[in-house]
Amino acid sequence: MAKKQLRVGMIGYGFMGRAHSNAYKQVGQFFPSNHQVVLKAACARDAEKIKAFAEQWGYESTETEWKKLVERPDIDVIDICTPNNMHKEIALAATANKKAILCEKPLAMNAAEGREMVAAVEKAGVPNMVWYNYRRIPAVTLAKKLVDEGRLGKIFHYRAKFLQDWTIKADLPQGGQGLWRLDVAAAGSGVSGDLLAHCIDTSIWLNGRLDSVCAMTETFVKERMHNLTGKVEKVGIDDACTFMCRYANGSLGNFESTRYARGHKALYTFEINGENMSLFWDLHDLHRLQVFDYKDEGKIRGWKSVHVTDNSPDHPYMDKWWVPGLAIGYDASFTHQVADFIQGLETGKPQGPTFKDALETQCVLDAILDSAKGGKWVTVAKS
Amino acid sequence: MAKKQLRVGMIGYGFMGRAHSNAYKQVGQFFPSNHQVVLKAACARDAEKIKAFAEQWGYESTETEWKKLVERPDIDVIDICTPNNMHKEIALAATANKKAILCEKPLAMNAAEGREMVAAVEKAGVPNMVWYNYRRIPAVTLAKKLVDEGRLGKIFHYRAKFLQDWTIKADLPQGGQGLWRLDVAAAGSGVSGDLLAHCIDTSIWLNGRLDSVCAMTETFVKERMHNLTGKVEKVGIDDACTFMCRYANGSLGNFESTRYARGHKALYTFEINGENMSLFWDLHDLHRLQVFDYKDEGKIRGWKSVHVTDNSPDHPYMDKWWVPGLAIGYDASFTHQVADFIQGLETGKPQGPTFKDALETQCVLDAILDSAKGGKWVTVAKS
Amino acid sequence: MAKKQLRVGMIGYGFMGRAHSNAYKQVGQFFPSNHQVVLKAACARDAEKIKAFAEQWGYESTETEWKKLVERPDIDVIDICTPNNMHKEIALAATANKKAILCEKPLAMNAAEGREMVAAVEKAGVPNMVWYNYRRIPAVTLAKKLVDEGRLGKIFHYRAKFLQDWTIKADLPQGGQGLWRLDVAAAGSGVSGDLLAHCIDTSIWLNGRLDSVCAMTETFVKERMHNLTGKVEKVGIDDACTFMCRYANGSLGNFESTRYARGHKALYTFEINGENMSLFWDLHDLHRLQVFDYKDEGKIRGWKSVHVTDNSPDHPYMDKWWVPGLAIGYDASFTHQVADFIQGLETGKPQGPTFKDALETQCVLDAILDSAKGGKWVTVAKS
Amino acid sequence: MAKKQLRVGMIGYGFMGRAHSNAYKQVGQFFPSNHQVVLKAACARDAEKIKAFAEQWGYESTETEWKKLVERPDIDVIDICTPNNMHKEIALAATANKKAILCEKPLAMNAAEGREMVAAVEKAGVPNMVWYNYRRIPAVTLAKKLVDEGRLGKIFHYRAKFLQDWTIKADLPQGGQGLWRLDVAAAGSGVSGDLLAHCIDTSIWLNGRLDSVCAMTETFVKERMHNLTGKVEKVGIDDACTFMCRYANGSLGNFESTRYARGHKALYTFEINGENMSLFWDLHDLHRLQVFDYKDEGKIRGWKSVHVTDNSPDHPYMDKWWVPGLAIGYDASFTHQVADFIQGLETGKPQGPTFKDALETQCVLDAILDSAKGGKWVTVAKS
Repeated sequence: MAKKQLRVGMIGYGFMGRAHSNAYKQVGQFFPSNHQVVLKAACARDAEKIKAFAEQWGYESTETEWKKLVERPDIDVIDICTPNNMHKEIALAATANKKAILCEKPLAMNAAEGREMVAAVEKAGVPNMVWYNYRRIPAVTLAKKLVDEGRLGKIFHYRAKFLQDWTIKADLPQGGQGLWRLDVAAAGSGVSGDLLAHCIDTSIWLNGRLDSVCAMTETFVKERMHNLTGKVEKVGIDDACTFMCRYANGSLGNFESTRYARGHKALYTFEINGENMSLFWDLHDLHRLQVFDYKDEGKIRGWKSVHVTDNSPDHPYMDKWWVPGLAIGYDASFTHQVADFIQGLETGKPQGPTFKDALETQCVLDAILDSAKGGKWVTVAKS
Repeated sequence: MAKKQLRVGMIGYGFMGRAHSNAYKQVGQFFPSNHQVVLKAACARDAEKIKAFAEQWGYESTETEWKKLVERPDIDVIDICTPNNMHKEIALAATANKKAILCEKPLAMNAAEGREMVAAVEKAGVPNMVWYNYRRIPAVTLAKKLVDEGRLGKIFHYRAKFLQDWTIKADLPQGGQGLWRLDVAAAGSGVSGDLLAHCIDTSIWLNGRLDSVCAMTETFVKERMHNLTGKVEKVGIDDACTFMCRYANGSLGNFESTRYARGHKALYTFEINGENMSLFWDLHDLHRLQVFDYKDEGKIRGWKSVHVTDNSPDHPYMDKWWVPGLAIGYDASFTHQVADFIQGLETGKPQGPTFKDALETQCVLDAILDSAKGGKWVTVAKS
Repeated sequence: MAKKQLRVGMIGYGFMGRAHSNAYKQVGQFFPSNHQVVLKAACARDAEKIKAFAEQWGYESTETEWKKLVERPDIDVIDICTPNNMHKEIALAATANKKAILCEKPLAMNAAEGREMVAAVEKAGVPNMVWYNYRRIPAVTLAKKLVDEGRLGKIFHYRAKFLQDWTIKADLPQGGQGLWRLDVAAAGSGVSGDLLAHCIDTSIWLNGRLDSVCAMTETFVKERMHNLTGKVEKVGIDDACTFMCRYANGSLGNFESTRYARGHKALYTFEINGENMSLFWDLHDLHRLQVFDYKDEGKIRGWKSVHVTDNSPDHPYMDKWWVPGLAIGYDASFTHQVADFIQGLETGKPQGPTFKDALETQCVLDAILDSAKGGKWVTVAKS
Repeated sequence: MAKKQLRVGMIGYGFMGRAHSNAYKQVGQFFPSNHQVVLKAACARDAEKIKAFAEQWGYESTETEWKKLVERPDIDVIDICTPNNMHKEIALAATANKKAILCEKPLAMNAAEGREMVAAVEKAGVPNMVWYNYRRIPAVTLAKKLVDEGRLGKIFHYRAKFLQDWTIKADLPQGGQGLWRLDVAAAGSGVSGDLLAHCIDTSIWLNGRLDSVCAMTETFVKERMHNLTGKVEKVGIDDACTFMCRYANGSLGNFESTRYARGHKALYTFEINGENMSLFWDLHDLHRLQVFDYKDEGKIRGWKSVHVTDNSPDHPYMDKWWVPGLAIGYDASFTHQVADFIQGLETGKPQGPTFKDALETQCVLDAILDSAKGGKWVTVAKS
């Protein structure tokens, strides 16, 4: 039986453009379905660069205007890998053209934009998803399963951090290719939208709604040369952001993110403490879930380091890969997301995080920045 | 040459009474000096129990009234191991009798009490010290050395937590022997005074003054049977306390403490991130200091797990113990403190933390509780 | 400029067939070169299964007779992923047809077979390589670099183990698809050829020639049902194999492998102790290299956990993947091997391990089995 | 009720003299019994040094002739902390005087000496014990409990190593105070008697009798200056020793010891793999036992890091120390041994390892050295 084509139009060719492309190519080999992903077109303003990208990754064609891409009838799904400030406009146009959308995180520059986007995709009824890929690291998915099975009991604490150290150098410029994350105009915010967004998404998924937050932010390097203007300009992003929160379920949260934690490359960790079980995960050793099970016999109770690599249904996604003990990479999380997106199409049950789910994170981000500015607790708006 | 006697009068016989007594007995064997510690008298209201304690630990005599103890002419130093609500009164009386004082932490119920105590000891000129023993775990002392040598460069972040799980059980009573830490009348506060006090003391020592704090507290179990009244009573302590802070040096702090983190027995950890070096320590593996040295060659840069057990001057205190690789216990931190206290007596240079040092922690604790109550940032008062 | 095609003929479709196919598809995206890998044909006796495999992975055609495959003029390279007992015959036929060969490890059933194969490929001058893929885990490649730079000084010790636990179950059958590794007729040996072969290959690469060995083997489960005959038959493989050795450089080796080490999935670890530096690696956390550098200052000397994920020339292969902190999987080692194989073709400098290199491992394996049988030290034959 | 005195006569004042003395002083405080340990006399040839030692540790008197010490009627137990070559003579003399004996490990220079010693103490009926102190690290004692409860099922593998790096320096002399372990005349052997002896003792305790062994030894530095003669002399000890073995229970063993493993201070580790459970311990983090329990549910099965610090009967000895999470040191193992020795006296059930137990280790050591010399498997003699 012939497979149904899923024709991708990719906008962007950077880090995420590559990660998604790899996923599109792997998905049929590891997660066969009734759909066949076709890399139809890649789009970016720089004609030469997007051509080279398309050739390397096997896209059939290129565009230099995203508006043309979203109108092409031979495209089924638009993948938005641009800086954050273009997400909304592209998403709305893609929606108008009835395209399915896979949008990079964070969903938007703020909740107001996000609400528009959610309203649009819901009204149009187009499939939509946001690339909060960490949900689909097998160890993280396993954590979700354990939570959903009710094993943790009453939750007392959730803590997460995402620590990096790559912007300590004061002569690093802001803006432009590879560095737009330092430019507030393109990124909207600093570590909060870039890193904490991941932590918040996972946290909502595992522990539910955040009711109120209290945050502080800091910009350690106040001015940086801007790549686009060539001038030294004020840095508008947050270099570091810490916040406390209270969850709807009564538990307490503690979050921290920075790009000034010397020694940490991408240390995203989370821990959740329940009455009966606690869980801990660390992106640096992403194939392990640490589990403390209070029901274990006292004599031999301790944190278990679960190497989430069994090719059995015990370990999410892993029955599709290798044999026990052989770890998959960070990149596999994207392959899993595409597999689930397709499954959503085939079953009619959309897989999260949808735009609507991602809007909830956006509301928390707004509250955080608001709180940091005012030095006070802020209630998180309903999405 | 005959040694000078240092005659100890111990008040209390619980966990700390034992830990200090062990230190007094070990100090002469591992850190010989011109002083000889003599366990002169142990004191507690229960005559039978203090008698048994004195016998087991070799105290020459007992008292059941601390007021009599502090007046005895054959006592040089009073060791206060009582619940927090008695620290001030005993300390003032001991000062009036010109005794040196070693007081358990936290110094007092609040900064106001602490100020009285500081004023008294300073006016009387009696040697004084507070048992913030973690400063003298060799790995922690090594951290201090590295900071003092200026190796870290500009500091960006400090984070600490002290997580336990022993009060999750709702039918655990409050008050009385072994459980006074749950009784606000005896303890003054919950995890903040008991656990965060340690974190704050170390933090001030390593990273300097905290300017302002913003905290939240929670009491998960609202009522517990009271051991002294036999009735179910409201719980007045904080079961959990999280706070953010800004340091005078421009760095950001993040602290958390709880007795509801399932899986953690006494997980006191701290991390300090400097421009050039970061340090991490964990009480559960107290003999290791994790060091990230940015000056290391890129190819082989990583967190070093330093096993702080070399019997050489490289590793503080360790030249007095065993051979490389053989870890000493938590208890040794008290032995080191007594050794340093004696060295302070002999050199005339008081070793910290003095009452004055400990008052600084008390001011932070006051600010935290104040902040949590008001839901706002609070400036830390000057000690 | 048009790329030169490298047309692959794959024999086998199991675990390794999939791993290699993934590498062929990824290589051009991550390691672009002047060659384009084309999946020309996949071959296996079962027509239906190989057809499904070809479809899933994108092979253009299928064969059910390997003899036909090796004769096809539209194939440039034969990839041998069959059980060990077919390596030699296929390799010789492929060589006769002037095909390049990528052969799964171990090279052969024994050194005698291996010698024939080496002689054949060398006489024919065909490119050849063996899939000892662990050499190309970035952390392992980094270890090799450090050794080659002379940083370790005189070597005293090398130790390696490869521990699994998947055959403890006594009712696991031997023979046939997925279980031929338990059948001595197909595999030649048990853990020695399957697991120790990897350890020995890395060890020769890092520490040079093994002069003499002394081994013991054990078969814990003496009889198992045979999948092909349907009868309970004697187990001919070694379930566990331990050996000591002396290297040509004067250092001592200690190796162990088993499939009966409860709790270990694929615990391949090695450690090398030099006068000035020691290195440790563990497949379970394959992205980390542990480095002890004696030249570090004593005070902060310790094992460094190097997260080998920097996208810079510091960390082999990693500049082609993601950003610092994001680990790649086990599978990437195969992608790296194909990239290097192509580089060998383009530069004319063959990349190891060649058949000749792999023969050296085969000689060690022969010596081990000989030693275990005779209970005595055995000199390793020259390759 | 008055306690019964246990009057100790200590021979030696080095590392072990200090460790034992600390234990004698601590035992009554942490493990009260009907006995009171009295430090009656300390003995060494150097009058001045032994005097200083006695003063520092509180011994009532000193001797410079051990023969006089063992005859003193006011001594109940002789503690032998001399170099190995004096153990036998002293033990026989002590036995003749009906003294109880606590002898440092290894028991003797060889099994022949050990047999004489066992015969003597058994004939005289004097209490006797050997200081294989690692049995009484709580995590190790817990391992023994788990084995005795039959939790491991059939055992397949035992592996242990004891790695150090302190003799790499070629200009380190041999012989004399602190360095007699490098002098074959005083020590009898090198790492085998010093380090492997510990590994073998634990192994016999946990896994039973070793039937046969096959070993290799190496002396990396062939000549060293001798402290006693002042001349460069041949080094007679083994710098490194590796051996394989077969146990009476059918399991396989793998042992390694060296003083040339750069980066390891005192890395004594052991692992035992059973059908149902595996255990791992590491002296560098001595308060942790790693437990893999195959009976755990597959989804969350992993190695548990048990922090053996609960003050409950779950964790051996720990109910006598502090509170959960607070680790005790290496030194506590000696305190535990004295406590158990006294319990043996009080209950009439001698606690191991007795001389007889330690002789078994001596027989293994003889077999190892014999095997290494002959390059062949050797059957372990019956003790």
